[in-house]
Amino acid sequence: MPVNKIVLIGAGNVATQIGKTLHRKGVKILQVMSRTQKSAENLASMIGAEAISDFSEINRDADLYLISVTDDAISEIISKISPLHGIVAHTSGAVEMDILKGSSKKFGVFYPLQTFSKFKETDFSSIPVCTEASDDETKLALADFASKISNDIRFIDSYQRSQIHLAAVFVNNFTNYMFAIGNKILEKNNIPFDILYPLINETVEKIKHQNPHQAQTGPAIRNDKKVILKHIKMLQDEPEMQKLYQLISEQISKSVNPKNK
Amino acid sequence: MPVNKIVLIGAGNVATQIGKTLHRKGVKILQVMSRTQKSAENLASMIGAEAISDFSEINRDADLYLISVTDDAISEIISKISPLHGIVAHTSGAVEMDILKGSSKKFGVFYPLQTFSKFKETDFSSIPVCTEASDDETKLALADFASKISNDIRFIDSYQRSQIHLAAVFVNNFTNYMFAIGNKILEKNNIPFDILYPLINETVEKIKHQNPHQAQTGPAIRNDKKVILKHIKMLQDEPEMQKLYQLISEQISKSVNPKNK
Repeated sequence: MPVNKIVLIGAGNVATQIGKTLHRKGVKILQVMSRTQKSAENLASMIGAEAISDFSEINRDADLYLISVTDDAISEIISKISPLHGIVAHTSGAVEMDILKGSSKKFGVFYPLQTFSKFKETDFSSIPVCTEASDDETKLALADFASKISNDIRFIDSYQRSQIHLAAVFVNNFTNYMFAIGNKILEKNNIPFDILYPLINETVEKIKHQNPHQAQTGPAIRNDKKVILKHIKMLQDEPEMQKLYQLISEQISKSVNPKNK
Repeated sequence: MPVNKIVLIGAGNVATQIGKTLHRKGVKILQVMSRTQKSAENLASMIGAEAISDFSEINRDADLYLISVTDDAISEIISKISPLHGIVAHTSGAVEMDILKGSSKKFGVFYPLQTFSKFKETDFSSIPVCTEASDDETKLALADFASKISNDIRFIDSYQRSQIHLAAVFVNNFTNYMFAIGNKILEKNNIPFDILYPLINETVEKIKHQNPHQAQTGPAIRNDKKVILKHIKMLQDEPEMQKLYQLISEQISKSVNPKNK
């Protein structure tokens, strides 16, 4: 059964980017539901949908109810909208599919593996969408639906998805924190951050050709204690950066030679 | 006085990439000097230069002696080749310019801010080259020379350069380590690493439009203890990753609210 009529539950970054993309692709979005009528209206008005903020108003004829809310809010929503006839799916990386049991006979997960910003439109076409479903028919329906917006659909179970989400925290959130520290060091010294862009670009390009473990460079992998000690001294007024520098350097040094410390 | 004739001292990644680029641009490289004759020959043969491994054979007529060796080897080299008439410059991020005092009346730094790989040719054109010099004439000569291979020449003193080098360790070496951890988590679960590429690309694109501190997302910045504790538990067999996850999460949480812990 193809998915043609959608209800979006949630009006945050993920719902907004998915909703706008679906709308551009001509998919009918019946409703946007949000806790506050105003944020529902904000999104609904952009994508030709009805805005609602009361669970009782939910359209029971949709083929798919896509829940894009904070992880903690999912169960409460399920308890209020169940039971439904259409497919119920959430978009979370960290929440197990089975939380949706009882919401409908057909349920699943639609997790776009990307970080979403307010400042720009997301191009979904190359974003991996991790899907999982209660049964084969729903699996096919969700994959078919996902293929309307992305060319990279993957069948990933809840356990694997939670591992991907954990890996994503390292490569996205923690990497961004490394950038924030680099930025802070340069700002303190009145050096424009863009001087680091070519280096950052190359850091990312490298790992597409080489396992990142093999691509590791820098003072820690060379166990270059002189530079490491110099850097630790330079960070004496920044105890948090200093602690982080020490821990990561130790771990990198040990990763090539467990005797290094 | 324009820089036309070069002697390269060192035959590692940096010397190789600079040498090949200069050769392509038609700059005359007189000699490649390396501790081992064989590695000098390897590079020299690619760029039409003479290979030497004995300090006494060094050509005294070069306009520029570019020293690209490990930081610790620089002073020894200086003591053996001094005094020279041409400009003597090193390519290190971490070593002060004044180490070159006494090597020549004219000395300076030529630090290309990039990570160099063996597996591919480096396109120097957009790489920031940080230059510093003993005097104004040498400064202009070095900048003119640098402009043969790059469009982004910056005048950066030794103190600023050491700060840039420190920032580079965070955004390049430590970021790569985050990628290595992400890769390891996926490998253990038989998930191809390329599923993370679009996310990694976006992580980098974001910071070109937004200060990385403002671009921070993820469970730590939301102080989402449920997900954080779940991740820490998932890492129970990987104590190093676990320790790192905890420390970075703590620091990110505190960066928005010092009361978080």
